[in-house]
Amino acid sequence: MSVLTYKKINKSVVALGMAACVQGCVSFDNNTKSTTPLAVTAAAVAPVSGTVEQSAFKLQMQKLGDTIIARAEAGIPVPVPVDAGGGPVHEQHKENYKTIYEAGMLYDYTGDTKYRDIARDVLLDYADLYPTLGLHPEHKPSTAGRLFWQGLNEAVWLVYSIQGYEVIRDDISPEDREKIERGVLGPMADFLSEGSPQTFDRIHNHGTWAAAAVGMTGYVLDQPERVEKSLYGLNQDGEAGFLKQMDILFSPDGYYAEGPYYQRYAMMPFLLFSQAIQKNEPEREIFNYRDGIILKAISTTLQLSYAGKFFPLNDAIRSKGLNTIELKYGVAIAYDLTKDPAFLDIVKYQGDVVPTPEGKKVLDDIEAGLAKPFNFKSQMFRDGSNGEDGALIVLRSGEKTNDSAVVLKATTQGLGHGHFDKLGFLYNDNGQEVVADYGASRFLNIVSKFGGRYLPENDSWAKQTIAHNTLAVDEVSHYGGDWRLSQKYSPDVLKYGVVNGVQIAAAEVDTAYDGVNLQRVVAMVPRDDGQQPYVIDIMRGISDTDHQYDLPMHYKGDLIKSQFPIEYETSNLAPLGTDFGYQHLWKSGETEQLEGRQEVSLFLGTAFQTVTFASDTPYKAIFTKLGANDPDHNLRSEEAMILRANSDTVNFVTVYERDGSYDADNETAVFNGSSIVSIDFDQVEDVAVYKLVTQNDKTIQFLVADDTSKDAAHQLELDDQIIEWSGPVHVLR
Amino acid sequence: MSVLTYKKINKSVVALGMAACVQGCVSFDNNTKSTTPLAVTAAAVAPVSGTVEQSAFKLQMQKLGDTIIARAEAGIPVPVPVDAGGGPVHEQHKENYKTIYEAGMLYDYTGDTKYRDIARDVLLDYADLYPTLGLHPEHKPSTAGRLFWQGLNEAVWLVYSIQGYEVIRDDISPEDREKIERGVLGPMADFLSEGSPQTFDRIHNHGTWAAAAVGMTGYVLDQPERVEKSLYGLNQDGEAGFLKQMDILFSPDGYYAEGPYYQRYAMMPFLLFSQAIQKNEPEREIFNYRDGIILKAISTTLQLSYAGKFFPLNDAIRSKGLNTIELKYGVAIAYDLTKDPAFLDIVKYQGDVVPTPEGKKVLDDIEAGLAKPFNFKSQMFRDGSNGEDGALIVLRSGEKTNDSAVVLKATTQGLGHGHFDKLGFLYNDNGQEVVADYGASRFLNIVSKFGGRYLPENDSWAKQTIAHNTLAVDEVSHYGGDWRLSQKYSPDVLKYGVVNGVQIAAAEVDTAYDGVNLQRVVAMVPRDDGQQPYVIDIMRGISDTDHQYDLPMHYKGDLIKSQFPIEYETSNLAPLGTDFGYQHLWKSGETEQLEGRQEVSLFLGTAFQTVTFASDTPYKAIFTKLGANDPDHNLRSEEAMILRANSDTVNFVTVYERDGSYDADNETAVFNGSSIVSIDFDQVEDVAVYKLVTQNDKTIQFLVADDTSKDAAHQLELDDQIIEWSGPVHVLR
Repeated sequence: MSVLTYKKINKSVVALGMAACVQGCVSFDNNTKSTTPLAVTAAAVAPVSGTVEQSAFKLQMQKLGDTIIARAEAGIPVPVPVDAGGGPVHEQHKENYKTIYEAGMLYDYTGDTKYRDIARDVLLDYADLYPTLGLHPEHKPSTAGRLFWQGLNEAVWLVYSIQGYEVIRDDISPEDREKIERGVLGPMADFLSEGSPQTFDRIHNHGTWAAAAVGMTGYVLDQPERVEKSLYGLNQDGEAGFLKQMDILFSPDGYYAEGPYYQRYAMMPFLLFSQAIQKNEPEREIFNYRDGIILKAISTTLQLSYAGKFFPLNDAIRSKGLNTIELKYGVAIAYDLTKDPAFLDIVKYQGDVVPTPEGKKVLDDIEAGLAKPFNFKSQMFRDGSNGEDGALIVLRSGEKTNDSAVVLKATTQGLGHGHFDKLGFLYNDNGQEVVADYGASRFLNIVSKFGGRYLPENDSWAKQTIAHNTLAVDEVSHYGGDWRLSQKYSPDVLKYGVVNGVQIAAAEVDTAYDGVNLQRVVAMVPRDDGQQPYVIDIMRGISDTDHQYDLPMHYKGDLIKSQFPIEYETSNLAPLGTDFGYQHLWKSGETEQLEGRQEVSLFLGTAFQTVTFASDTPYKAIFTKLGANDPDHNLRSEEAMILRANSDTVNFVTVYERDGSYDADNETAVFNGSSIVSIDFDQVEDVAVYKLVTQNDKTIQFLVADDTSKDAAHQLELDDQIIEWSGPVHVLR
Repeated sequence: MSVLTYKKINKSVVALGMAACVQGCVSFDNNTKSTTPLAVTAAAVAPVSGTVEQSAFKLQMQKLGDTIIARAEAGIPVPVPVDAGGGPVHEQHKENYKTIYEAGMLYDYTGDTKYRDIARDVLLDYADLYPTLGLHPEHKPSTAGRLFWQGLNEAVWLVYSIQGYEVIRDDISPEDREKIERGVLGPMADFLSEGSPQTFDRIHNHGTWAAAAVGMTGYVLDQPERVEKSLYGLNQDGEAGFLKQMDILFSPDGYYAEGPYYQRYAMMPFLLFSQAIQKNEPEREIFNYRDGIILKAISTTLQLSYAGKFFPLNDAIRSKGLNTIELKYGVAIAYDLTKDPAFLDIVKYQGDVVPTPEGKKVLDDIEAGLAKPFNFKSQMFRDGSNGEDGALIVLRSGEKTNDSAVVLKATTQGLGHGHFDKLGFLYNDNGQEVVADYGASRFLNIVSKFGGRYLPENDSWAKQTIAHNTLAVDEVSHYGGDWRLSQKYSPDVLKYGVVNGVQIAAAEVDTAYDGVNLQRVVAMVPRDDGQQPYVIDIMRGISDTDHQYDLPMHYKGDLIKSQFPIEYETSNLAPLGTDFGYQHLWKSGETEQLEGRQEVSLFLGTAFQTVTFASDTPYKAIFTKLGANDPDHNLRSEEAMILRANSDTVNFVTVYERDGSYDADNETAVFNGSSIVSIDFDQVEDVAVYKLVTQNDKTIQFLVADDTSKDAAHQLELDDQIIEWSGPVHVLR
């Protein structure tokens, strides 16, 4: 964002006096008198038309300048609102707030008044339009907007535009200033606060955008009461507003309850408003608030990704990742605050930067060779405001791009955007997804697909348990598919750490189904043959009564081998079930009853993955293709293998290993099959024992005590040895 | 390849005398005394351990050296053959020929005797093994090998190994030399020639590999009779052998009858043996043979690609493209011969080079900044030895990576690897496939999938007409699916060129079905609104009797909009038909009867494609998913829309246009829908008239005369104007 120079509060900042400056002036650093951390201290830069500096940032700004000039020359329409998300008028207004913002940033950087005039003229058009608008003709009833179909977009409009306006404010005529502030900026801030209390006072990312928009407007228009409402809620009791959102929406580890996709989106107003607060009221020490939660949250957002894309948990658009605009702001601001050179590594992946002083600093420092690798690491992210509501656990191994990452989702529901996948599991390796999450069923911004909104299949398929890699019992989703019920509970983390060199994560939840306790143990076990570690997954359903247990593996790639025969449906496909997502699965094949250790292999372009599995009870494998009961053709065609057992208690053990390599260009194929010789189950006293033997005669044993209390001491005689440990889970090898 | 110094014939080349050279000698350029074009004249380079040169090539060779040393230290097994393609022993022998070759190249480059000794020792092991071998236990009956399951792999082994051996030959003991030549090289050459006459004398890429292997061995072992057999066939009458293969297998435009995938593969022995001939018998002027057919063929191979991948015609593995090893050799050799800097552009895409003097030259010249963009252009590639058997026509527009390419396949069948898609159509745009070819049904080198061989579904699906984007009549494939029958016929090209600024290609074939003439006109029409050109496709089936006409569009991406309702199957899927590939299509939806202009839109990640179509007869659209009657789960799940009409004669007009853009990171979506207002059909006298009107009131008219004779003069009164042209097809706008 622009280096805001909120003159009233931060008295030390001098007015810009840009009106006296002709083209060619250096204006980018005219806030260096500020003592705040956001001030840029880099040397002054030459104007765009000069040749003194040819930095990557300057080239990027020149390109942006060309774009803005071209837009201005083509004419910038400010049309009467007609359509919902993704429609041409909607998109025009989105482009316009970017134009206001970018023209402002260009004016700040170059001092060239043509950019100032572009931003001003567009704002004046809005000052004409906005007072004429009632609610948007296609408004979303719960969160209506005036300029846009939903208030959220309107808040985003204001967050961008107020930054562009701030830069030009002192350099336009008093008449224009009054018209813009009374015509659009003030009224829009009013509408987003008093006019939309249900959103403004909501502890939710829409509320954060509204608070940021109104608060930033308060600073720029010198209206501190707007800032107070933004920080503390409409009635200023602190039960709502930005600070409360910071208290509630992030866990102490910087995890955002809705998951990484929404975390990315929510980060932007948190960051921009925090930056404005820091600039104007440094005495609030906003970046130290809650032990530095904002910076922690940026780092967490980055960590919740693999190969540049976010783990697609809950209602996630799968294409989103580290190079989204929100994280371009986030990383630039984080670098400005911390100077941690690992952030520069992320910027290199992003490819370009935001058009701000922070963006310039980042690019300059990359050019100066300061970047260091960003350390993606194993980490537990506790969920809940107090960190007591479960956790998301990520285990990692290896160096990019030859790394593996496993996710165990033991979090809360994630509110209305949450999915019913308690103890969900994801596995990424070799730069690719292997066991994946469908993400949301939505074509974002594509109007022809239900207005770009969440599709009906998001509820009927994408949220359901069977759409995920976790145990579905009796063909019903966790908590019966009631998110408000689910929101009340979260799994208990049983273990996170390293035991005998094995990275391990474990959790349980006994509220997802009546009378069934779900337990999952996920581990990365190093191999001594130079291969990527084994990923071992133990999934348990524990009950006194019989149930049908389904464990899906939503795999990527081609299933190229199975140890057992599969009877594929050749002439007729029918749905696997009738509800909770089962109605969307074509049953494409199944096996006879299987017992003991089995394996299948997947081909994923440059390597194979072999999956070895077993259960302590007879089971069969069902193969599915997604797409049944999809009258609008909304679903992608994806494949899954579902292990199904009928029993009171079931234990599934699955081992994933990267297997060989495939080089299409050089026509080399190495494919070995499983290196797991046996998987055995045993119950020794009050401990479940899982014993795996590899082909080089290594033994790996997992011990899971019936007593899952946190610090209980356990002792067991195993193979004539006395094993002692504390806590529910232990590993031997 | 190594700079072969075949001493007997090319007397000017001096023996290397490497035996007297200790580590650190400069050996890479010791053939500069040769006057042949293949000699390298670059300055001598320092040994690997030195620091004088740090070129990209040197770094690559250092890395290769590390790999070879590591292999040698781990031990290089030379096992008794047991398995077919893709098996571990098969792959070991493949790795070994690369080791022999690469160790030789490293010895040549560095003079370091440890590489010489590695190559020698592996060859000695083969000299022990080979005499003990009968036919391979899993041998392919028609083309058996001894070391490999098929003779083809054995020929490849020899092509690589003889190059590695040539470099070390003068620097090993006479005893070792005799053992290697009598134990493996000579006997293998015998086996591949006299021992395998059905392959050696075959006009086919297997024959080319065998000829190259035997001929190159002849040069190195100083056995000119092997060279003569390789050039002229076993009985040396010129009816078989390398020269005959050059006569027959390429068209005068350098098109290889089986298509680009096999062209790539076949190019390698053509290139390597030609290089050896040039080196040893420059008086043959092999690179001028048939008007320079070899270089023309390299250029053609490169042109037959889009976004780095080959057009997947006929039995093609879709992942293959410009960075395959064969083209790394091809481009390095072509650059060495021509110094055309556009080849360097291709090498930059390939990323690395072959470990030869030509590879070094290429990398050095790239580092010197000599690369120029390779010009992918519209081109007609005539098929058939005389260029009289149809053609493959590629129309292109725009600059990489914002370009479009359309393919009209009016070639011969392409022998046993050909597909039944006369007048087949492909459309690529914006770096992606839009309308695509399934390619081959095969998991190359993946043993668990039918030994890595062509799958049964290659015949039952991938080759069939309905698997392609061309007209299928009465649910039967072209020529009843009989490739030997099809091989007798080829389409007639009606037009290739530019008319009134429109790129146009047209062809017809009346032998694919009894009593039905198929005609297709494909055009790229420039737009004046800065958008990519319209791709317009007119597909005609002309008959006196009623038929069912099916025109499939095998599209990529998501179908996100249709102008008409589609009734999707929700609870039951059944196959669309019973034979000729129809049995593999699940019918997933269909429409009521449609008339007039219709449109659908596709979403392809960063842009949309809108497809506008119409027919002069009522039709319906059928939607399919691939995968029925696939008991071994061999088929990919892909979607198609099939336009179906029942009539005596049918005309389908389809217009493809790139539509808007989609930026997931910045959440911008532009999607406009079709800009084609109307598509009208008329028959004016003896000319079919197709009239398209765009939303900015431009008219495009295609005229196709009933008389398709090549030079017939036509005159027509149209809109009160007299239009005159010659030949069957004309365009007005």
